[in-house]
Amino acid sequence: MAGLTDDVGFLLSRASGLVVRATNAALAVEGLRVRQYSVLVLACDAAGGVSQRELADCLGLDPSQIVTLVDELTEAGLVERRPSPADRRTRLVGATPEGRRVRSRAARRAEAGVQRELAPLDDDDQATLRALLARVVAGSTGR
Amino acid sequence: MAGLTDDVGFLLSRASGLVVRATNAALAVEGLRVRQYSVLVLACDAAGGVSQRELADCLGLDPSQIVTLVDELTEAGLVERRPSPADRRTRLVGATPEGRRVRSRAARRAEAGVQRELAPLDDDDQATLRALLARVVAGSTGR
Repeated sequence: MAGLTDDVGFLLSRASGLVVRATNAALAVEGLRVRQYSVLVLACDAAGGVSQRELADCLGLDPSQIVTLVDELTEAGLVERRPSPADRRTRLVGATPEGRRVRSRAARRAEAGVQRELAPLDDDDQATLRALLARVVAGSTGR
Repeated sequence: MAGLTDDVGFLLSRASGLVVRATNAALAVEGLRVRQYSVLVLACDAAGGVSQRELADCLGLDPSQIVTLVDELTEAGLVERRPSPADRRTRLVGATPEGRRVRSRAARRAEAGVQRELAPLDDDDQATLRALLARVVAGSTGR
């Protein structure tokens, strides 16, 4: 029977925990945690904004968790809920100008946090890791 | 600026979340969650038992979280705290015979859960992923 430290599921969880912790530490100076930062990035990058349903699907979180994160970012003045131009009954989450400024700074800090933990891997290794993980995430049925 | 879905930190967190969820679902029939299962595996594999400090370091959890997990597994009759032969003031966590039986069944179930999420990767890809993640985990300073 394989030991825990040979188990790919365990290694994935452990490496993720290290990277999340380092990223949270790096983002603390911006008053953000990694989940808030992820919502902010998606709100910045979606032209016109992103729905809370899309946020939940992309991040693998429950809708109620998304509502809390969007509320926190709204309170901080970084995002706002706006009616969708396509359907005014739907509201989209978009970044404010301040949200875009914070995102630029936070992106550099988050990257530094991630790189601190990924230091054992060179650029090629990191590209390989990224590609393998992207295939796992893309293959998910969204459970 | 890289989008979220190209970010290796995001992909790691997302893939880990998928695998943890699938493993928890697979272990539910044994009445275990993945963190309890990890403690059980370490208690089974350490000759003579494992200290709570070692469990915390290996799993990247706080000592108080380890106490809770060991209490739950003790309550379920799967592990027990025993005095260390080397130092009777220290207690080690060891598996009971029932704990070893449950671990064998749970290992097969957990593996099936992990493989459901890693299906996009063939055996060679999974070996590459495992090796890359092991280097990240080994390189951690244990923060």
